[in-house]
Amino acid sequence: MFEAVELGHKVNKADYAAALDQLRVGLINAQYDLQSANFPLVVLLMGDDRDACNAIINQMGEWMDSRYIHYHFFGHPTEEEKERPRFWRYWCRLPWHGRTGVFMGAWALNAIAARLRCDIDDGEFQQRCEHIRQFEQTLTDDGALILKFWFHLPKSDHKKRSKKGKKQAQIAWRTDDEEWQGHNNYDDFIQLAERYIRITSTGAAPWHLIESAQGRHRNLTVAKTLHNALKTRLGATVSPGAQLVVAGSLFPVDGDHTVLDTVDLTAAYPWQQYREILDQYQTELSELSRKARKQGLTCVLVFEGWDAAGKGGVIRRLTQAMDAQDYRVIPIAAPTPAELAHHYLWRFWTRLPRAGRTVIFDRSWYGRVLVERVEGFAQEYEWQRAYSEINDFESQLAEQGYLVQKFWLHIDPDEQLRRFKARENTPYKKYKITEEDYRNRDRWPDYANAVTDMVTRTSTEFARWHLVPANDKRYARIQVIETFCNALKQRL
Amino acid sequence: MFEAVELGHKVNKADYAAALDQLRVGLINAQYDLQSANFPLVVLLMGDDRDACNAIINQMGEWMDSRYIHYHFFGHPTEEEKERPRFWRYWCRLPWHGRTGVFMGAWALNAIAARLRCDIDDGEFQQRCEHIRQFEQTLTDDGALILKFWFHLPKSDHKKRSKKGKKQAQIAWRTDDEEWQGHNNYDDFIQLAERYIRITSTGAAPWHLIESAQGRHRNLTVAKTLHNALKTRLGATVSPGAQLVVAGSLFPVDGDHTVLDTVDLTAAYPWQQYREILDQYQTELSELSRKARKQGLTCVLVFEGWDAAGKGGVIRRLTQAMDAQDYRVIPIAAPTPAELAHHYLWRFWTRLPRAGRTVIFDRSWYGRVLVERVEGFAQEYEWQRAYSEINDFESQLAEQGYLVQKFWLHIDPDEQLRRFKARENTPYKKYKITEEDYRNRDRWPDYANAVTDMVTRTSTEFARWHLVPANDKRYARIQVIETFCNALKQRL
Repeated sequence: MFEAVELGHKVNKADYAAALDQLRVGLINAQYDLQSANFPLVVLLMGDDRDACNAIINQMGEWMDSRYIHYHFFGHPTEEEKERPRFWRYWCRLPWHGRTGVFMGAWALNAIAARLRCDIDDGEFQQRCEHIRQFEQTLTDDGALILKFWFHLPKSDHKKRSKKGKKQAQIAWRTDDEEWQGHNNYDDFIQLAERYIRITSTGAAPWHLIESAQGRHRNLTVAKTLHNALKTRLGATVSPGAQLVVAGSLFPVDGDHTVLDTVDLTAAYPWQQYREILDQYQTELSELSRKARKQGLTCVLVFEGWDAAGKGGVIRRLTQAMDAQDYRVIPIAAPTPAELAHHYLWRFWTRLPRAGRTVIFDRSWYGRVLVERVEGFAQEYEWQRAYSEINDFESQLAEQGYLVQKFWLHIDPDEQLRRFKARENTPYKKYKITEEDYRNRDRWPDYANAVTDMVTRTSTEFARWHLVPANDKRYARIQVIETFCNALKQRL
Repeated sequence: MFEAVELGHKVNKADYAAALDQLRVGLINAQYDLQSANFPLVVLLMGDDRDACNAIINQMGEWMDSRYIHYHFFGHPTEEEKERPRFWRYWCRLPWHGRTGVFMGAWALNAIAARLRCDIDDGEFQQRCEHIRQFEQTLTDDGALILKFWFHLPKSDHKKRSKKGKKQAQIAWRTDDEEWQGHNNYDDFIQLAERYIRITSTGAAPWHLIESAQGRHRNLTVAKTLHNALKTRLGATVSPGAQLVVAGSLFPVDGDHTVLDTVDLTAAYPWQQYREILDQYQTELSELSRKARKQGLTCVLVFEGWDAAGKGGVIRRLTQAMDAQDYRVIPIAAPTPAELAHHYLWRFWTRLPRAGRTVIFDRSWYGRVLVERVEGFAQEYEWQRAYSEINDFESQLAEQGYLVQKFWLHIDPDEQLRRFKARENTPYKKYKITEEDYRNRDRWPDYANAVTDMVTRTSTEFARWHLVPANDKRYARIQVIETFCNALKQRL
């Protein structure tokens, strides 16, 4: 594969200066146009020539307005990073729409270095590459422009350079960077690199192999590629992710019967019995959650349900029993400007808990396939592909050892109306009820269908959906705390 | 001190419910009004009764809209936190204007626990308290509303509770939280607490001591205090920080002579000599910066100067010699909405580098006393007090062991005009020049005075200002890289 870029390309000084002067005007203009576009530019710099990556970072700062470019380097994962799924640290650094993020080595280097160090075997390497392909796919589907540059230097040049490096520290091969040490074994590295490139070069995010022996050729090729890609993408009228991929139906769904019909809404607890059972489970949860912290078991709880189904009350019965430092409740409302300028999963990725902690999402990423689907905030191709994006996301949580529990609190329309009225009559609860809540009631059957699709497509062995009857608040509270306690007991 | 809150306050059920129903309406409304105000609410929960802090967090989630409240817990500093000045982790979590941040223990607990563990002696504890007072002062000066609650339980109640705790895990004293373990020695803790409260209770951020033996009394007192403080502050027409404190003049400044007159602008290097010296220093810097990374020496470089003084070019000569993972250039432009919604130092605090890395600020916090002063973006009382805020900030960097170097690049007005014209004639540099740049030229004498004040007030033994003659770009580049290399050599 690499022989195709060992051609000894050279550009002379005058041609270089002339071409670059023109390109720089184009690059600056494209960068300014990008600012008002609704997608980010992700540049991945990688290769067997680490010096070339360094040099390109320096060049980009000169070519473009560096206020809108962020550079990201990744060494060995920190303590905080090790406690989250592998892609957490990349998600946290993804650029805003309109901005550019330059990633040095990053996920590509991480996978190859791990294999070279024999931390993972061939099968695991393959799986890692698949995750990477999925990750890049998720971003490009959302509109991101991903440019991946691979800088290649023939073996003979590497040898020359490392000899020179011993005399002249400035251009020495930096062997003190652990992740890049694998490169010392050039042949193994090249072999693995070919495999990596083959798997992760896709139509939406192809690799650009660049001969890096001559600086001028290397710089010019990068500048041209950047410029062309940006110009093409900025001129495109349709986002590359705008293709409808209909998720295959798992079960025949007919409009009259939904999965919610299976929930027995008559279930209830009398007051005295409720108090006793709740007390018992809260005591149990208090012990279990401290045990979870000590053993580093991390939990993610997801609450969805009809408006006024009582999510807040259920959540408070859980948190009352837990130490405030062990949990965090994340209420999900309409996205902020920062959240709108990222992939919809970004706000959830960035809030994943450290080891031993619990995060409780009061509404969640399922908004994509519920309210966004029903109200038309998401296009059909967006919510259709969301099922597999969500399953992939949750599978990464499970791989990290997280305990994931998802609850749908179910009530019927009459009960909802009673609760709306009660809220309106309680002065300090009035703010919880708006006209929108009434409007949503009209779409009840649409929501019920969306819930059925959601449950059939995303209830997995690693992240099950629990449908909770909640016409009786007490019954719902007990059922949730009991389910959570049992899941904890099984894992601790 | 604490005997004053050991009075056995009790509130009965009916009074509690009635009072709270009213207060909750007030709290919700105040919280919504806060959202459009230009200041944040910072709540610090602390005391000898940790359970009370826990309970209040649970209550606040019920009383108010939890979408706009963030809760923060701090254990032992993480690896990343240890590599930055002590207050970094608090600065990073400060709430946006209009939002509420609830801090559990935080800086107060951290200081007291360190003294109880004998990590610091009495003198250091005193100094820690002074830093805390300064920190809270900085925030309240900026308009923040800080409410500090200290929950106190008499010794006898603590004993009762810990006996009960052994039987019933749910309310057991959580001795597995290391930072709070000092509380096991009640008497020492109380003695230290009195000292801490005395030093850090100021007019702008007083402590509220609350008897926490009875939950209803405790909750009601917190709700009332919160409500009153918010209502008062929201009704105030003048920000509490809006008092003019004129920084004393260190040297007599007269308008005709500024510190900039002392800079010899004729200094220059011929091309050949420049190339050789630059090469030599870049080689040196390359070695030194790798040595700095290995030894964990962290550097903060600040560049200020006239428009077109050549900051970018100087910075690139530094970064060319450094490994891309070791430095980060932060160009400072007009603040983003996120930055405007925080204290002006926030965007600098949050970008402080990890151990062994270098951050280069292309413009900096000195904008407060330069452009913001001259253009009137900051009120006089704001930029006047900024000198001591900045000195305190930089002293904290120095205490952490950071190397801080500040450069002012100086050119004369004629040279500036030549460069403006040259930029206009270079297609890919045109974007760098706007009408504003020309307008700024008219204010030259005002800027020169502001620079003189800045240098006299903020050139300290731990963070010196270097005035660099930059009419000759080559001379400026050599002088900066030489200065940085020498400073590194001295420290390594």
